[in-house]
Amino acid sequence: MTIVTPQEAFLAAFSLHPAGVAVITGLLDDGSPAGFTATSLASFSADPPRATVNVAQHSSSYPALAMGKSVILHFLSSDQVGISRTMAADFSQRFVGDHWAPGLGGLPQLHGVRGALLATVSAVTEVGDNAAIVLDIIDGETHPENQPLVYVDRRYHGVGDIIAD
Amino acid sequence: MTIVTPQEAFLAAFSLHPAGVAVITGLLDDGSPAGFTATSLASFSADPPRATVNVAQHSSSYPALAMGKSVILHFLSSDQVGISRTMAADFSQRFVGDHWAPGLGGLPQLHGVRGALLATVSAVTEVGDNAAIVLDIIDGETHPENQPLVYVDRRYHGVGDIIAD
Repeated sequence: MTIVTPQEAFLAAFSLHPAGVAVITGLLDDGSPAGFTATSLASFSADPPRATVNVAQHSSSYPALAMGKSVILHFLSSDQVGISRTMAADFSQRFVGDHWAPGLGGLPQLHGVRGALLATVSAVTEVGDNAAIVLDIIDGETHPENQPLVYVDRRYHGVGDIIAD
Repeated sequence: MTIVTPQEAFLAAFSLHPAGVAVITGLLDDGSPAGFTATSLASFSADPPRATVNVAQHSSSYPALAMGKSVILHFLSSDQVGISRTMAADFSQRFVGDHWAPGLGGLPQLHGVRGALLATVSAVTEVGDNAAIVLDIIDGETHPENQPLVYVDRRYHGVGDIIAD
């Protein structure tokens, strides 16, 4: 495939890269819920347990990710495409409905996920208009009976056959 | 599922989170190839095109990720489980074989991948024993005819059926 610009190369390659779908939720300073869909949630270290997520500084949820704030990292299941879309659409509509309730740490927690981790922001690295957020994990729960959701090739997929252990 | 410690919660939740499998390669100061398997490669921003990857500071490849260094980000295909394992095993054996050749930017490039991006390290954030690396994308190529590889539930999988566009 012929690729002309670095941005075209970036977009083409990352569209080919499978990613789990996460939703990060927290609270704004006025106590209202904030959250967004992310495919950039990644493991950072196991000891101590830390993760990273990347976010645009102009995101409406960005103030909920300031140093010392707590958030919930949700790992979406295969029947939550609607949740993924809701949490990426109009900010004012993301918590309209019964798909969530106060949960871990008193923060807005989504129902029906594969896993949820309570975390505290321990580092923020701003580069250009975006930021990499380091999160210290402090609590969590998992529901492995729910199936995983994968975003790749610009579509939502289930996980396929096992290739190797 | 009952989870006792934050580390147990972290390990359980991230084992449930699907991830594409990437291999990062570069050169050590003596010109020898270095590289490692990573499931933490993530998109950071599209404009300018940037990505992040997380790495342990004690990694043998860490010197190849210093500020200003160039690396290749490889997106592995479904028939590259062996490459994933090779690039996570004994450091001295990772470039023994014909699975690579000098490629983009003159760096060690793996054959048979879904995509490859040439990138330059533009920020390094060290937290504890690990680091988040910000990478500016400068060139690349994709091979969408190769199928994606997903690591989830502690096993390698293919991608499953489309759930939604």
